[in-house]
Amino acid sequence: MSRESDTRPNVVFEVVESSLLKGNPLGDPATRHVPVYLPPSYRESETTRYPVIYLLAGFASTGMSFLNFSFGRPTLPEMLDSMIRKGEMPEAIVVMPECMTRYGGSQYVDSAATGPYESHLTGELIPHIDRQFRTLAAARHRAIVGKSSGGFGALRLGMNHPELFAAVGCHSGDMDFELCYRPNFPVAARILEKYDSNVATFFTRWESLDKKPRGEFALLDLMAMAACYSPDASMPPPGNMRLPFEPRTCQLVPEVWEQWKRFDPLTMLEEAQCQEALGSLRVLYLDCGSQDEYNLQFGHRRFSARATELCIAHRYEEFPDTHADTSYRYRVSLPLLAEAIAG
Amino acid sequence: MSRESDTRPNVVFEVVESSLLKGNPLGDPATRHVPVYLPPSYRESETTRYPVIYLLAGFASTGMSFLNFSFGRPTLPEMLDSMIRKGEMPEAIVVMPECMTRYGGSQYVDSAATGPYESHLTGELIPHIDRQFRTLAAARHRAIVGKSSGGFGALRLGMNHPELFAAVGCHSGDMDFELCYRPNFPVAARILEKYDSNVATFFTRWESLDKKPRGEFALLDLMAMAACYSPDASMPPPGNMRLPFEPRTCQLVPEVWEQWKRFDPLTMLEEAQCQEALGSLRVLYLDCGSQDEYNLQFGHRRFSARATELCIAHRYEEFPDTHADTSYRYRVSLPLLAEAIAG
Amino acid sequence: MSRESDTRPNVVFEVVESSLLKGNPLGDPATRHVPVYLPPSYRESETTRYPVIYLLAGFASTGMSFLNFSFGRPTLPEMLDSMIRKGEMPEAIVVMPECMTRYGGSQYVDSAATGPYESHLTGELIPHIDRQFRTLAAARHRAIVGKSSGGFGALRLGMNHPELFAAVGCHSGDMDFELCYRPNFPVAARILEKYDSNVATFFTRWESLDKKPRGEFALLDLMAMAACYSPDASMPPPGNMRLPFEPRTCQLVPEVWEQWKRFDPLTMLEEAQCQEALGSLRVLYLDCGSQDEYNLQFGHRRFSARATELCIAHRYEEFPDTHADTSYRYRVSLPLLAEAIAG
Amino acid sequence: MSRESDTRPNVVFEVVESSLLKGNPLGDPATRHVPVYLPPSYRESETTRYPVIYLLAGFASTGMSFLNFSFGRPTLPEMLDSMIRKGEMPEAIVVMPECMTRYGGSQYVDSAATGPYESHLTGELIPHIDRQFRTLAAARHRAIVGKSSGGFGALRLGMNHPELFAAVGCHSGDMDFELCYRPNFPVAARILEKYDSNVATFFTRWESLDKKPRGEFALLDLMAMAACYSPDASMPPPGNMRLPFEPRTCQLVPEVWEQWKRFDPLTMLEEAQCQEALGSLRVLYLDCGSQDEYNLQFGHRRFSARATELCIAHRYEEFPDTHADTSYRYRVSLPLLAEAIAG
Repeated sequence: MSRESDTRPNVVFEVVESSLLKGNPLGDPATRHVPVYLPPSYRESETTRYPVIYLLAGFASTGMSFLNFSFGRPTLPEMLDSMIRKGEMPEAIVVMPECMTRYGGSQYVDSAATGPYESHLTGELIPHIDRQFRTLAAARHRAIVGKSSGGFGALRLGMNHPELFAAVGCHSGDMDFELCYRPNFPVAARILEKYDSNVATFFTRWESLDKKPRGEFALLDLMAMAACYSPDASMPPPGNMRLPFEPRTCQLVPEVWEQWKRFDPLTMLEEAQCQEALGSLRVLYLDCGSQDEYNLQFGHRRFSARATELCIAHRYEEFPDTHADTSYRYRVSLPLLAEAIAG
Repeated sequence: MSRESDTRPNVVFEVVESSLLKGNPLGDPATRHVPVYLPPSYRESETTRYPVIYLLAGFASTGMSFLNFSFGRPTLPEMLDSMIRKGEMPEAIVVMPECMTRYGGSQYVDSAATGPYESHLTGELIPHIDRQFRTLAAARHRAIVGKSSGGFGALRLGMNHPELFAAVGCHSGDMDFELCYRPNFPVAARILEKYDSNVATFFTRWESLDKKPRGEFALLDLMAMAACYSPDASMPPPGNMRLPFEPRTCQLVPEVWEQWKRFDPLTMLEEAQCQEALGSLRVLYLDCGSQDEYNLQFGHRRFSARATELCIAHRYEEFPDTHADTSYRYRVSLPLLAEAIAG
Repeated sequence: MSRESDTRPNVVFEVVESSLLKGNPLGDPATRHVPVYLPPSYRESETTRYPVIYLLAGFASTGMSFLNFSFGRPTLPEMLDSMIRKGEMPEAIVVMPECMTRYGGSQYVDSAATGPYESHLTGELIPHIDRQFRTLAAARHRAIVGKSSGGFGALRLGMNHPELFAAVGCHSGDMDFELCYRPNFPVAARILEKYDSNVATFFTRWESLDKKPRGEFALLDLMAMAACYSPDASMPPPGNMRLPFEPRTCQLVPEVWEQWKRFDPLTMLEEAQCQEALGSLRVLYLDCGSQDEYNLQFGHRRFSARATELCIAHRYEEFPDTHADTSYRYRVSLPLLAEAIAG
Repeated sequence: MSRESDTRPNVVFEVVESSLLKGNPLGDPATRHVPVYLPPSYRESETTRYPVIYLLAGFASTGMSFLNFSFGRPTLPEMLDSMIRKGEMPEAIVVMPECMTRYGGSQYVDSAATGPYESHLTGELIPHIDRQFRTLAAARHRAIVGKSSGGFGALRLGMNHPELFAAVGCHSGDMDFELCYRPNFPVAARILEKYDSNVATFFTRWESLDKKPRGEFALLDLMAMAACYSPDASMPPPGNMRLPFEPRTCQLVPEVWEQWKRFDPLTMLEEAQCQEALGSLRVLYLDCGSQDEYNLQFGHRRFSARATELCIAHRYEEFPDTHADTSYRYRVSLPLLAEAIAG
């Protein structure tokens, strides 16, 4: 890498050994390679310290995904470099956590079915980053942001950990589970029938295939969410979760559905400590596409309206787009967050 | 028409003047042209009387639709002639009611927003048919069947009118509204936003277009169902209905949703008089495609399981298909019904 | 039918016994039921004679298709009645020929694989209509029009039979075969592989199915066109045609392709007698959607440009739409044609 | 990067300064960052030399794309490491050239519209790699392979440069341009109309958009191919190419089409020196999905059949899949090529 030109963004892959993830139920690695973006001046000084933004990937994505080449679209580091060099945002270190699982994601929660990803991120990754890099190692200088499942994660971690973050950004984050998850249940149930209503059978085949059947992604997604929100540690993986519906009739299983809804940001928003946490933020930013095919705009509107009622300062924007390929919205959130947590 | 060949099915268009539909809110005609299929021997004898099957069309369809030419598929009368001539089913008169509305259908219910279609069908059409044709004019010799909204209509009218029907067939009928209608709400809500959340604005434009935008059919459907299940007679048409969700947040409006659910066959099945009505039938037949994209298979399974618990004799079949183009299933139901009500 | 209300369009089904179609290779009926629209005043007088418009259906459709009920769209007779009553077009008899075949259509050509449909239409149907109805039985008072395969048929018959027609309308008609048919060859070839490259095997299965696989329609279409343009009478049906490509490599078979192209209106337009025929018309009308997914707009532009070079008077319109559901364009062509052939 | 774990594949980003690409018409960078995969033992020894495989990306992709994270699919380096460690293939250095352009790709040809990418790859990149790494720097130990546009590039460079490569792999490579490109012309022409038939107008807007309109990718692709096969240096970019059709009528422009076809591997295969080049290879491998939506299977069959006629040894496989997501096929080709060029 020493031959790398100066003009490319400076990204290092930090190796994080996690004690918490050791022996996780799915056999996912305890060692994670976390891309860390260092701002242009990082190499020039040996003493300057920088605020840190944690950037959470969506479902089926991970930290590495932000570096993926896609024709006509800058990578996140390229976008950051460009904005910083143009003076559109202050310098910051941007960490892209690796919380992937065999099921496609962790939702950044602690789950008996996948592993303690929330604890890993808050208790292991953040201290590690603060040790290894010249960070401004205080909540005051730390933000968290993401899109989709990453937006959910950022918002939820922001509500749960006011001691860690001073600014939160949520792009098209999972919320109002009645609208974003429930319509998918019959779709997943239809696929599940092909596998004798057995998620383990489905998943074993899925993993064995060189090419994953796109038409069955809806079931993978359902299964992963169930693993995060309604794990069943008494069952061996894969299949160590309770489904929120009866496979044959697709009838809701109310007690499981209740478990899920406890994770809904709209539910959390009614809790005093979450209100307090959000109220203490320097910046709370949300946005969503007005044509989001997962119906997230509806939840965001409710969240924003309710936050206003609760006198929680925030900014909510709606833009004319769907859920797909909206990374350009980071051009709005990242400068805002970086400004809020600047030194 | 006198030049018509003998080999084509004998279909006459009966003109029915309805007193009940006169002055209906949508300005739909009070005079209806109802296709009536007469079996092969009808013309040969002047005294033979025949059992009658009422065949209900689905949403956006009507009696005439059963006569539509479609390459590679027989019309319903052609299918009937063929089955009767081969001895696969007994002769019967088959009436194809015309209960269309400006909104796309009536669901065969009495509604303050569209008109008293249930009353028209049971109180006007049936007596009219019994007067004009050589029918066996008794419940014992009368069946009702349909698909989709027509299956819903047949099942519901069968539950409400044991004095009229002895046999009922329901193909992929609307039921378990949580699964068949509710997932459509956010889809409809997204379209509605284009029209400032005003259904009247939407519908006025819809009606004005030579070519209807397919992508907006989901909203038309929602609006039509609301007109049938939650009419609002205090509002002028179009727009004389209450929507089951808040347009901006897509949150359920519980009291409206309750109104809808009263029409759900699964709700009706819990009522003693409906159980009694179904229990008195000579034949109750249901079927559904196992890949129905409106999720109707789930409701049918629940209906069948619950009917079994209630000791209501019935036959339920599931076939490997979606919701579309399943008229071939009438080859199963029509002989069964005709047999049950034969003279 | 005597009970039929006065307000519905007057359509009679004319039974035409064809000598030419007797014993046709596909076993299609020699007796055809042809819908004939009679204008409002037809019944009032016993002596008035009317001009006649022949209205040709597209592929997989037939005369009956113009009567199909479709929610939100008038049938052709309803459209005619409405325009005539409003004074938007002069009265005319409109005949909807039935030239359907087992393959889905005849393209209104004489073919050794399907039958002599051009001869039947020009030599049997027209005289029959002139005998049975009070027509103005002269080319001067006769027009022909259609859409898609029906537009092709109308244009081609207009070029071939100036002795029969004085006005021609072509909506989105098949032309520039390089663009409208050839891109479909690899699509059809891919499907054909499932049937061991044997069209007969494909078609036998197709006919046996209650529900036709939509994804295989492209091969049915290809096969039907080959039957019309490159029949092979030495082979038994189904399969009595030469395909314009080698199944395994999809390479063009030039001599077959040449046979096809002889039917291309763009090829015909270069022939002196076709130019003369078109030049003699009172009205030649063409239109096409600018987003036609069969690429017909390109052919229409060439046709129109070349016709202009050849000083053939015509009118060409392009409208912002695709190929589907464009029957509203008959509101433009029918009044124009009816005016041109009025008595 | 020094903290990187041993278990991750060893990929370095080689910075290549190109003289040839300096001042290229599109202003694309002359400095390219080329991912180079080094096999597991590379670091252990300081003297061992390795054969080299050049792996060419498809259109809209580049060397970096092989490193993209995609859930459930290994990156190319991960696949390589896994196969080598399991003994399924011999060790090799794998170079992933960066020949991207503003138009989406270079087809690995020298073009007056994009730049001399063929010359760069053969004359600059290969020597650079041989200088910087412990390669077996001889044609005998060098292979080239790719998919889609990369398969085309590998096959074409293999035919043009027997002095450089001893083994060639072509997965679903562009060939039989009549089938793979021509059906796209009307699709592209339809899009082009929105931009007044001006490719420069289209492209300028395309580049300005944060989110590229997927529906217009077909025109971008057409434009890029034209830039590679029929450049027009007399025009300023963007727009410095001749289109193979007239925009308004989509008629082929024969002389431009001839220019394109000179690049068709099926055309090249008829040239004596290409036959000789292919005949001299130690391995020529081709494969294609039997349901390739770009119709490439047909061209591959012709290529294979003709190669057999010409006694050119090769292996052709067809697998039941489409064009998308077929990187698993590298599990077949890479071991074969690595074996052929092993030391």
